[in-house]
Amino acid sequence: MSAALNARSTVDGTNVAALMTSAPHRIVANLAGPAVLAADLAGCLGRIGTIASAEPLIVSDVVAGVVGGGKRLRPLLVLATAYAAAAPLDPRARDRAVQAGAVVELLHLASLVHDDVMDESATRHGVDSVNIREGNIRAVLAGDYLLAQGLLAGSSLGAEEGAVAARTFSRLCEGQARESAALFDVDRTEESYLEAISGKTAALLATACRLGAMAVGLPADAVEALAAYGHHMGLAFQLVDDLLDVTSSAEALGKPAGHDIVEGVYTLPVVHALRERPGLRELLRRGDRAAAAVAVRVVRETGGLDVTRRAAEAHSAQAIDALSAAAEHLSPAGRTMLAELADVLVERRH
Amino acid sequence: MSAALNARSTVDGTNVAALMTSAPHRIVANLAGPAVLAADLAGCLGRIGTIASAEPLIVSDVVAGVVGGGKRLRPLLVLATAYAAAAPLDPRARDRAVQAGAVVELLHLASLVHDDVMDESATRHGVDSVNIREGNIRAVLAGDYLLAQGLLAGSSLGAEEGAVAARTFSRLCEGQARESAALFDVDRTEESYLEAISGKTAALLATACRLGAMAVGLPADAVEALAAYGHHMGLAFQLVDDLLDVTSSAEALGKPAGHDIVEGVYTLPVVHALRERPGLRELLRRGDRAAAAVAVRVVRETGGLDVTRRAAEAHSAQAIDALSAAAEHLSPAGRTMLAELADVLVERRH
Repeated sequence: MSAALNARSTVDGTNVAALMTSAPHRIVANLAGPAVLAADLAGCLGRIGTIASAEPLIVSDVVAGVVGGGKRLRPLLVLATAYAAAAPLDPRARDRAVQAGAVVELLHLASLVHDDVMDESATRHGVDSVNIREGNIRAVLAGDYLLAQGLLAGSSLGAEEGAVAARTFSRLCEGQARESAALFDVDRTEESYLEAISGKTAALLATACRLGAMAVGLPADAVEALAAYGHHMGLAFQLVDDLLDVTSSAEALGKPAGHDIVEGVYTLPVVHALRERPGLRELLRRGDRAAAAVAVRVVRETGGLDVTRRAAEAHSAQAIDALSAAAEHLSPAGRTMLAELADVLVERRH
Repeated sequence: MSAALNARSTVDGTNVAALMTSAPHRIVANLAGPAVLAADLAGCLGRIGTIASAEPLIVSDVVAGVVGGGKRLRPLLVLATAYAAAAPLDPRARDRAVQAGAVVELLHLASLVHDDVMDESATRHGVDSVNIREGNIRAVLAGDYLLAQGLLAGSSLGAEEGAVAARTFSRLCEGQARESAALFDVDRTEESYLEAISGKTAALLATACRLGAMAVGLPADAVEALAAYGHHMGLAFQLVDDLLDVTSSAEALGKPAGHDIVEGVYTLPVVHALRERPGLRELLRRGDRAAAAVAVRVVRETGGLDVTRRAAEAHSAQAIDALSAAAEHLSPAGRTMLAELADVLVERRH
């Protein structure tokens, strides 16, 4: 299949239908109606598909595999925030929310594609990594192109939205740099971990909610409150991800448990386990896969899991609390839906 | 020296003083006054230095070497275009032109840093390549950060300027992809070459002039005319670069002559030489450095050099012609200065 066709077909409506069975999507669909959500998500993905298929030399088959995958959580959050304030959306707000959904997903995809250059992992979402199949040249260019197109789409919404999108990607870089700087650091602090995930994950979820709120024209204080909701949800989301990396089976994760440990990314469960079990330091310093497998078992026996689970729940609760400051701009059903979203993302098991 | 200090010191006023001796800078200084040009260039570089030094984890010493180097031709073009229309600039126009200069230079630097991931060349501007000294991770992140900050600075000028900056970086990617797709292609056409350099080089020079014209509030038709001037100047500039890569000594270039040939980038002199000398195909197909050295000598004997020189002169002339459509918005001295700039960039010998 040609790259252009592939890029189109992997982001078309068929994928949206599959997405609609996941818990977060069902929660949003309950409010907006499944047909509306499916159409709006398809709208986001259609815009991304058009961008991807316009440059088959850049977005080749393999990159299209990355572009075509994932849970589309970020556009879902844009739409959820907009619906919570103003469902059913008027045509202009709807068009702006769909465009904002495309913006945040393009930034996410750019970051994923560039991660493939930085990451030595062999697979991502089951597709051979772009790095391995096509080399760094293609991955750098494709990520740059998706980023430029994402920021172009952001600027099409207005100067402020363009600036928000650019600042967010800069925050992603900062988070990634903080994570890189702490690789294999057995003295990593909780603060270092939280700084890294604030940039790496929470900034983009905050921006998804911010742009959703801006799409329906909410006033500045409500926009800030919803961005805070997204920020805390992003922290909770990443904390759960990092917990699951330690606790899940390889089958559930689609990659070996303790992958982060092998890569030298010491997340909150590990940071805490290192305090409880000084012997873990030596195990981590060995750095091979066998030692990492033992380290995973050690971490599972420590209180690091509980600490991480409680931190995720606390940020989920803070996300829900943040909604109060926007309450007068949300429908009661909309506010409930956003709170359910924050809950379900912490309760997930994979 | 710390990365932050290094990033600041390499883009401070000392460098600007050295730049002012080059022919293009002298031409612009003749119109605007050397003190004004030096202050405005220092303003552009100061903004870049602030961005670079804000994130020492990302913009490390080595990246700072790239950030601190180069001829600053792109900000010079922004300023030259603004001066040609409205020297002396009022404070608002001056601030916008300085900001636009920082935007185009940041896009250029992001592209250079990412080239280091893509490029196997050992050195750039005499500094060990970022790729070799720090690895791909740092280079990808640093380029992403500079790009995001460049587009953020673009959005600060307005939604249209943000969109122009994002679209331009997308064009850079397209040009780079076209060049990559044609690597080692002995059947490469002149059209393929021109498409690649239109994106890779001319798009950003066109944008420099476009943003310079927008900074002083010129009407749309004059902005388009000045962008066309920049586009043709960019083509001429790259044609001369590609000519010099074949004709210059290693000393003058700071890298071995025929570097592009070794890398598989067959530029216009080579594309033409391949038509004149079918034996060249076999030489290029061998692909080793010895064969490349012979190939350079063969290319030097062909009409490809004249063809390339004439193409550069033709685009320089087209750049000057494009100024007529903006004539009523340029001072006579400003128009003469821009024409001289187009001439001098073709006449350069290194």
